[in-house]
Amino acid sequence: MAVARAHKPLLFEQVAARMRDAIHAGILAAGDRLPSVRELSQQERVSISTVLQAYQQLEAWDLVEARPQSGHYVRLLRRPPPQEPPVSRPPPSAREPSVVELVRRMYMAAGNERIVNLGSARPSSKLLPTRKLSRLIAALAREAGGVGIEYDMPPGWPALRQQLARRSLAWGCQLGPDDFVTTIGAAEAVHLSLLATCCRGDIVAVESPAYYGTLQALEMLELRALEMPTHPREGMQLDALEVALKKQPIKAVLVVTNFSNPLGGCMPDEKKEALVRICERAGVPLIEDDIYGDLCFGPARPRAAKSFDRTGNVLYCSSFSKTLAAGFRVGWAAPGRFRERFELLKFAQTVATPTLPQMAIAEFLQQGGYDRFLRSLRRELAKQMEHVRNVVCSSFPEGTRMTRPEGGAILWVQMPASVDALKLHEEALRRGISVAPGPIFSSTGRYRSCIRLNTGNPDLEQVEAAVRTLGQIAHRLAESAPRLQKSA
Amino acid sequence: MAVARAHKPLLFEQVAARMRDAIHAGILAAGDRLPSVRELSQQERVSISTVLQAYQQLEAWDLVEARPQSGHYVRLLRRPPPQEPPVSRPPPSAREPSVVELVRRMYMAAGNERIVNLGSARPSSKLLPTRKLSRLIAALAREAGGVGIEYDMPPGWPALRQQLARRSLAWGCQLGPDDFVTTIGAAEAVHLSLLATCCRGDIVAVESPAYYGTLQALEMLELRALEMPTHPREGMQLDALEVALKKQPIKAVLVVTNFSNPLGGCMPDEKKEALVRICERAGVPLIEDDIYGDLCFGPARPRAAKSFDRTGNVLYCSSFSKTLAAGFRVGWAAPGRFRERFELLKFAQTVATPTLPQMAIAEFLQQGGYDRFLRSLRRELAKQMEHVRNVVCSSFPEGTRMTRPEGGAILWVQMPASVDALKLHEEALRRGISVAPGPIFSSTGRYRSCIRLNTGNPDLEQVEAAVRTLGQIAHRLAESAPRLQKSA
Repeated sequence: MAVARAHKPLLFEQVAARMRDAIHAGILAAGDRLPSVRELSQQERVSISTVLQAYQQLEAWDLVEARPQSGHYVRLLRRPPPQEPPVSRPPPSAREPSVVELVRRMYMAAGNERIVNLGSARPSSKLLPTRKLSRLIAALAREAGGVGIEYDMPPGWPALRQQLARRSLAWGCQLGPDDFVTTIGAAEAVHLSLLATCCRGDIVAVESPAYYGTLQALEMLELRALEMPTHPREGMQLDALEVALKKQPIKAVLVVTNFSNPLGGCMPDEKKEALVRICERAGVPLIEDDIYGDLCFGPARPRAAKSFDRTGNVLYCSSFSKTLAAGFRVGWAAPGRFRERFELLKFAQTVATPTLPQMAIAEFLQQGGYDRFLRSLRRELAKQMEHVRNVVCSSFPEGTRMTRPEGGAILWVQMPASVDALKLHEEALRRGISVAPGPIFSSTGRYRSCIRLNTGNPDLEQVEAAVRTLGQIAHRLAESAPRLQKSA
Repeated sequence: MAVARAHKPLLFEQVAARMRDAIHAGILAAGDRLPSVRELSQQERVSISTVLQAYQQLEAWDLVEARPQSGHYVRLLRRPPPQEPPVSRPPPSAREPSVVELVRRMYMAAGNERIVNLGSARPSSKLLPTRKLSRLIAALAREAGGVGIEYDMPPGWPALRQQLARRSLAWGCQLGPDDFVTTIGAAEAVHLSLLATCCRGDIVAVESPAYYGTLQALEMLELRALEMPTHPREGMQLDALEVALKKQPIKAVLVVTNFSNPLGGCMPDEKKEALVRICERAGVPLIEDDIYGDLCFGPARPRAAKSFDRTGNVLYCSSFSKTLAAGFRVGWAAPGRFRERFELLKFAQTVATPTLPQMAIAEFLQQGGYDRFLRSLRRELAKQMEHVRNVVCSSFPEGTRMTRPEGGAILWVQMPASVDALKLHEEALRRGISVAPGPIFSSTGRYRSCIRLNTGNPDLEQVEAAVRTLGQIAHRLAESAPRLQKSA
């Protein structure tokens, strides 16, 4: 099933990355002039146009500004960029999560239109091809007549499964239309994968921090989460997983392999392969949630762990909610050897996936242009990510750490231990800003001073003002905490 | 919450019903001439036009034919109409259902277009306002732009919940928009109601036979079904329920109150009220599935048990899948005192209900005409039901019993004990006909000689041929069974 693919960044991206690292390391300080285009071209032995592209990339990241007739300068950063959060160290016991109530408060707020929404985890619909999709679904409704009204029984709309099979090449897979079952978003795909592989009370190994939707699903199904140590850039620690698989009766491993939620880490290919092999050897199914894979900032979409699956042990889940139309509720799974049971469970849980939305997405993919659209979306998201990182960097208290995602639309911010994320969340809501507070990402009540910020909003000014407000609140909470301790 | 409403049938319907009863009782035999319009008008002391309407109704039921210049005659029926099935007597122990595999074989067949589908349970989309709905969703997609692409977060589209609140008057309720949460069809509504009220291993009291989708949901959630004795016309036996509630730790009662699936019974109002009170007193939530209520043959839609709910103990579930557009996947619940938890579970399971389909149905209801459409749909369904009953009556083996539903689109046929419904189902599939075999409606393997037939197909000739084929198969199975016994 595995297909070899090139993952090397383009030349200009390599050059830009080296300059970025030099800036972050303080080798190039704020206000420093960068080498001229010609100088850098000679220095790096690349073409003039490659250097120009690299400088454009640095500008897009908001690290560099061009001053007319003068050259490129490092923009002002108040201090060196913050460290990444450390590898997480959750306790080694499985717990039934209890986040549903906490999540409620958060998402109730997100529905309010006057709120600046930094609590969600996806690109603004302003960045998505809404007009084309709307035109397509309108045309299909008129032309398809009764078909759009009828049930489309599992496994789901054939033309859509055909397109998914074609797209699976981009994930490093070679799946066929019959490998897929369409679902109500990735949420239902993950839910059904858990139902297909676990019985109540079973233990599921997850990342730590883990996506709150996953923890909610475990809570609903009365499953227990075993949070695994997780590296902020490379995902779940496999040595720890191997130990846990030996010691505890784990029944499934659930991983967001690419640009995980909330850490934004992307598991390297060799680690994905190792993960698949470890699960195979242990006879434990791997549920892969790859909902963010298409939102990579780099030139090559990262592979799916599914691409290393030779035994059907991987249940691959994703959707179009982050890239095309969340309101269409079209997701899918490629559930491997669990396919038949998965399809039955889908039928029993929601009978069918809505017909017209599936038809419209199939038509969109068939007409081509999805990859071109993705390229422009990725550029926007990379720019926005760098922007939010810069504002956090210049406005949050000393000691704040944050992730450096290479894809997706979320940033994980670890504030000083004295800052209570739930208090920050509540105070921010009063000031018209929603964030996702750290504790909803844990079954063990951890991450009390962390927040997840959405970087998918293209209104940079609005986002900057909101993040600066969050920084002010964080400063105040950091300062008030020790005083309270003294008076206590 | 309860609202007093008139339930008396119209005059012409009373007259038609009396004539029907006379025919079924054999007082008027096949070929007999009915009284002339004038005679009957004097005899019944009603107007000429009332008699004409009554005769039209009898013709619609296929009981009577008009012969030009001669009068109305009773149509040929081979023998008196069969008896109803008896009240069911399931064993008094709770079991975890195991029907998922059986159901699979059935519904896989239903997807095949060349199959005459007598296995489903809803009106053909030929009878539904597909064009208008298609036009509406097309217009909304063009006009609504980004809105249709966005998540519509729970509790669901406000204009739709507004319309549901208005329609709740027809169910005898006075619910407000905030009482509702929209779902992926009634299937998700029932599923979430079970999750909101039960923990794994809990016992849920259900009808016997019970809708296989309910049994599947119980199986998926590792709940146990306690099948209750059920009257074919009046639903669950309440005395038995009361005893069971005292003896066993039942955590929820799940009832299809109106035109239940598969029996087609409709619980009388006073029994609904008693059911609500019994559950209240026992402190056990009542999950009401009212997906067929709008498909009554009579003039007044039966009330919902929810209309007697004063404490929020009833979780009311329904959808538009049987009356408007199954492929839109729009259902809802009014979960009473479980509303908040229900909404959270909805968010956790499938995040949101598709946006455009909700908008289209809200607009359809707002424009009016739904009630007019329902009236014509009900006339069609009543006619088709009578037609299928007549064909079963004249083509199935002696000793066959069947229900006499006053609404919905399914007929439950109990064949002689020697006929194996699973064998009939398989033989019928080979001959291009799908039926729903009895055992999928039980957690205890009962109903081995029963089948459920769809009466929602308006192609009367096709249906007649298919039902006659089923009758032939049933005859052969009935005859071969004793011979096999002898040779054994």
